[in-house]
Amino acid sequence: MTIKSLDDLFVETLKDIYYAEKKLVKTLPTMAKKAMSDDLKKAIEDHCDETENHVARLEQVFEIFEVKPQAKKCEALEGLLDEATEVLSSIKDEKSMDAAIIASAQTVEHYEIARYGSMVSWARELGRSDAADILQETLDEEHAADQTLTDCAETAANERAAA
Amino acid sequence: MTIKSLDDLFVETLKDIYYAEKKLVKTLPTMAKKAMSDDLKKAIEDHCDETENHVARLEQVFEIFEVKPQAKKCEALEGLLDEATEVLSSIKDEKSMDAAIIASAQTVEHYEIARYGSMVSWARELGRSDAADILQETLDEEHAADQTLTDCAETAANERAAA
Repeated sequence: MTIKSLDDLFVETLKDIYYAEKKLVKTLPTMAKKAMSDDLKKAIEDHCDETENHVARLEQVFEIFEVKPQAKKCEALEGLLDEATEVLSSIKDEKSMDAAIIASAQTVEHYEIARYGSMVSWARELGRSDAADILQETLDEEHAADQTLTDCAETAANERAAA
Repeated sequence: MTIKSLDDLFVETLKDIYYAEKKLVKTLPTMAKKAMSDDLKKAIEDHCDETENHVARLEQVFEIFEVKPQAKKCEALEGLLDEATEVLSSIKDEKSMDAAIIASAQTVEHYEIARYGSMVSWARELGRSDAADILQETLDEEHAADQTLTDCAETAANERAAA
């Protein structure tokens, strides 16, 4: 990989987040299965459906940039998922499971928020407002997913307090 | 590692972010050196000074929880830094360097925002508002650092447009 322009940087980052979104489509159902509360299970399943849509949107952006869709291994997401797997496999307490799942899922949401935030501004700078608008839609959904996870955390904490 | 309670989950996460902050104290100066603009260089150097303070605050939190400070390898941060190193070493265009540094640094900021956000709410649930207040101070600084990076990105984009 050689980056000689902002356009190159944009396309390399697009390949990276494309890998990440495709990997999440496979990983989120496993996370949903581990969730104890129905609320959290549903939140993750709903976000998995959205994630399939994010993959399709990235394919539209590849098309706008006239580049064949290609996934490039995203070391950052792999690290985040390795950490999540390690923590979740260590949980021997049902009451902490959802707290750990929510926290892990939020590290992934925040990774995506950072990536889409950069890509929206680069797309605008490159005069590709069509691509920027598509990426902004996903960015808004990642923010909303993060907020839903925070709401799930509050509900779970209240339930633990009442138990 | 075996997590049997929210208290255990909190302490394990504390060890993880302690590793991350200590590693960043060593890594941020390298990132600052690569920055082309004085604004960005200064922003990263200032945040490195804050990061030393974050390490000290985590040591206070270990003390509150009566646990000896201990760093546990943070796979997530390692993945984020591997990705940053890979991208930055591929840049053959001075004008894109700062954009790439800012984007990489923001993935790290967002990881920390997610982690401190979870830890603040767990500390409150555990009745440790003293620890929550300390962690909240750092969380506020991570948010501010992320905003400063966004400001640097806008300045850099305006300079590229004017060039």
